[in-house]
Amino acid sequence: MARFKVLLTYDGSNYSGFQVQDNAKTVQGEIEKALKKIAKGQFIRIHGAGRTDAGVHALGQVIHFDFPFEIVEEGLYQGLNTLLADDILVQRVEKTTPFFHARYHARSKTYEYKVLNQKCKNPFVRHYTHHHPYPMDYHAVKQALSYLVGTHDFTSFTAVNTDKENKVRTIYEAQVHVDEDTNQWTFKFRGNGFLYNMVRIMMGTLLEIADGRRSPEHINFLLEKKDRQLAGPTLSARGLYMVKVAYDDDSSLNR
Amino acid sequence: MARFKVLLTYDGSNYSGFQVQDNAKTVQGEIEKALKKIAKGQFIRIHGAGRTDAGVHALGQVIHFDFPFEIVEEGLYQGLNTLLADDILVQRVEKTTPFFHARYHARSKTYEYKVLNQKCKNPFVRHYTHHHPYPMDYHAVKQALSYLVGTHDFTSFTAVNTDKENKVRTIYEAQVHVDEDTNQWTFKFRGNGFLYNMVRIMMGTLLEIADGRRSPEHINFLLEKKDRQLAGPTLSARGLYMVKVAYDDDSSLNR
Repeated sequence: MARFKVLLTYDGSNYSGFQVQDNAKTVQGEIEKALKKIAKGQFIRIHGAGRTDAGVHALGQVIHFDFPFEIVEEGLYQGLNTLLADDILVQRVEKTTPFFHARYHARSKTYEYKVLNQKCKNPFVRHYTHHHPYPMDYHAVKQALSYLVGTHDFTSFTAVNTDKENKVRTIYEAQVHVDEDTNQWTFKFRGNGFLYNMVRIMMGTLLEIADGRRSPEHINFLLEKKDRQLAGPTLSARGLYMVKVAYDDDSSLNR
Repeated sequence: MARFKVLLTYDGSNYSGFQVQDNAKTVQGEIEKALKKIAKGQFIRIHGAGRTDAGVHALGQVIHFDFPFEIVEEGLYQGLNTLLADDILVQRVEKTTPFFHARYHARSKTYEYKVLNQKCKNPFVRHYTHHHPYPMDYHAVKQALSYLVGTHDFTSFTAVNTDKENKVRTIYEAQVHVDEDTNQWTFKFRGNGFLYNMVRIMMGTLLEIADGRRSPEHINFLLEKKDRQLAGPTLSARGLYMVKVAYDDDSSLNR
């Protein structure tokens, strides 16, 4: 028995999210099915660093699991990539300590959100970007992003639910990069954790700032008010990517 | 009654090709269905510049059709883009002469073929590139491409069939561009016309030259032998794009 840490990339378009569900194709479900074949019929539970929703992509999801038999890293790497569909790629497999936990030990997470900012749709990136056809103000967006950085109560930026948990999170980095060739704006958020739908609600608000419907300073007002109803809409899943999970003992994996 | 010329972009992944077929979703079928709605139930036949196969994409397919009622270009543009799915985009609509024919009047066509040249697959471009995991020799490829340029009998580079037609075609331009960031090689072919599967068979042969299984000069041997069995395999449809169709009276459309 050994514990393995695995770095994954996937196109979430055809999955009902990461987390396993009855009667739905999920990333976790597909990986557990593949591991069961490699383990000669024995079920192996995997644990992901985060649960991406339906349609959300990952460039650097991290999972861990305990494999019941003797196996080398390369064997798992080849076995998983052979069994999994073309939209899930195992990037790396590493034997880790029996104490490592993909979710509990995550020190920071990085998400990106891609927006296609042009009048026409683009059929080739319809599953990989959110389409926003209105002019966007780069400086207003930069300013708004600066207000999100820091330790705040993000109640206004999470789905309303009965969960009593603490809504305070720290965002270390909030940036935007504009690619003039493809008209794609890539937003990057690195933080110690993200609430449910937090990036997608921040994005819905940022786009209303980008096209002038709200001022950049409105971010501060929303952080203070702690009211989901006041923020912008939850943007589509297709633009969202889980990019990186960092760990305290960060080894060669997932740099 | 007026004739319209329309410039189209589509992601061919979910279509059984361009040409209409019974019991299959095709690009032509979807456009004719949309036109029928716009024409209040009247069927309108469309004519494409070329018939792309299942999975082949288009950045610049051209079609023409006769619309039975008075309608402005903008009306057709909006109507088609509203009715068509997200993977087909009408880029431009132009009223043309009653004599224009999208296929017969095409002076040259440009196709591109994209190859992902890296060890790992990439889930995000699996429908948009052919994956070739072996090292590729840029200079050998450039040399081989130069032998394809000119007027040749391309019998070795077309699907074997009983068709007695003339297999002589002229390639004006055959180039390759390597994007080091994405590891994508984009091959570009411009010619007065292309035989069935011609680009995909040229590509299957070029990749065997790229990884050293054949010499660049083998192209000349194949052109001379006029034997499909001697050339390389037909590469996958997913890497192929119909990029541009040029006409003698080339107007503002499709530059």
